[in-house]
Amino acid sequence: MTTYDKLKAAQSKKSSILCVGLDIDFSKVPAQLRSIPDGLLEFNRNIIEATKEFVCAYKINFAFYEQYGIEGCDLLKKTFDMIPADIVKIADAKRADIGNTMTGYAKSCYEYFKADAVTLVPYLGKDSIDPFLQYKDKMALILTLTSNPGSANFQRLESGGKPLYKHIVQQSLSWADNKKMGFVVGATQPNDIDQLRTMAPENYFLIPGIGAQGGSVEAVVKANAHGPAIINVSRAVIYASKENDYAEKAGEKAHKYKLSFM
Amino acid sequence: MTTYDKLKAAQSKKSSILCVGLDIDFSKVPAQLRSIPDGLLEFNRNIIEATKEFVCAYKINFAFYEQYGIEGCDLLKKTFDMIPADIVKIADAKRADIGNTMTGYAKSCYEYFKADAVTLVPYLGKDSIDPFLQYKDKMALILTLTSNPGSANFQRLESGGKPLYKHIVQQSLSWADNKKMGFVVGATQPNDIDQLRTMAPENYFLIPGIGAQGGSVEAVVKANAHGPAIINVSRAVIYASKENDYAEKAGEKAHKYKLSFM
Repeated sequence: MTTYDKLKAAQSKKSSILCVGLDIDFSKVPAQLRSIPDGLLEFNRNIIEATKEFVCAYKINFAFYEQYGIEGCDLLKKTFDMIPADIVKIADAKRADIGNTMTGYAKSCYEYFKADAVTLVPYLGKDSIDPFLQYKDKMALILTLTSNPGSANFQRLESGGKPLYKHIVQQSLSWADNKKMGFVVGATQPNDIDQLRTMAPENYFLIPGIGAQGGSVEAVVKANAHGPAIINVSRAVIYASKENDYAEKAGEKAHKYKLSFM
Repeated sequence: MTTYDKLKAAQSKKSSILCVGLDIDFSKVPAQLRSIPDGLLEFNRNIIEATKEFVCAYKINFAFYEQYGIEGCDLLKKTFDMIPADIVKIADAKRADIGNTMTGYAKSCYEYFKADAVTLVPYLGKDSIDPFLQYKDKMALILTLTSNPGSANFQRLESGGKPLYKHIVQQSLSWADNKKMGFVVGATQPNDIDQLRTMAPENYFLIPGIGAQGGSVEAVVKANAHGPAIINVSRAVIYASKENDYAEKAGEKAHKYKLSFM
């Protein structure tokens, strides 16, 4: 089954476009879970168990795992493996390199971790994305406009009357069809989601930035205008409580977010 | 000791600006070394032993290691650990993410692997680089113009009469002084090295693309006009022979490249 079909099926089955980001953080989990990999793995297991009926996807950002070295790599692999088969696994790795080298990252994300989709930084152009597009059943999620203040530094530079991030969408649309490619668009930029939706009406948008980063649910839902989307929430769900009721509270928050996106 | 000082000392001691890239590849090492991590670790150990007197730095591209999953992570750590203390260790990780998240990658590269310098993709702007700049003794190497065909897709888009990669150099020069920041400039673009040298006369340039990628030694050396540089060669050194004399041949090639850069 392709990632595209799996995503559609999961969104339909769960009536949800919510993705939960499993951004583990030693300092934010209950004290008795501050061990690696066991404690954090138990944390992830309980978060997944409590939220799985409300989500279409989980997003796993490699940075939070890699900070713990080889034990973090172990935790990363075990976390991927424990995600239920009908839920999409997004490797939020934001990899970028020249073509020859990107093959290694594609093997890591798709063959070792068995991700369904991967986030990629397009700064190095088409040949840097191609090794990921070779996996016909998978979906590459191209970074366009991000949710951080620094997105203004380069992403909005205008060339020929159009900002860089629109050049990226326009060019990359020709690299693969909508089933194999989506775009990452920060929720803190709802006006831009609206404009990008016009350029790419049928591509999935992965929209992070809701919750801790301050993106407005209402503005995002309105701006996206019912285009295919995955809206990610990380910290506001998984750290809804720092006490022993963390999983229960995460489930409640996930349910609430799910409903707010409909 | 800062990375900057370590680099200057290594270049002076070895009379070399050569960096060797330890791009491991299962299919290119002698057959008896095709095991992970032991065989590839032995390969790296012998390559380092044979080339160490000719180099100021080793560049380790994470993609080649990550493709082997947790065993690759083990190999990566052990490779970092076996590099002699007086030679600069460059984590060629090309990481990119928002500020909060980049802290995880900075911990991975600087605290776990104990790299001296890291390559970074600046697409997400200043706050994405800041967590790396917090490590006062280290050096961030910012991708500007890369050595692959796809570098033409976005890096050369003109804004206000200037291509994107020059905006990146110009803006990022204000984020840190020349001792804490260098730039990655592909060797396949010698005319541009020349121009960037004018913009950033005192920053180290990490120049990949010589050898297998086709960059010309002569053109690069001329274009760089004696600015501080690290010139990287990977495949053309470490796979100079696929037979049992691989280490000896790698040493010969490294020696030859070292001399050609003087």
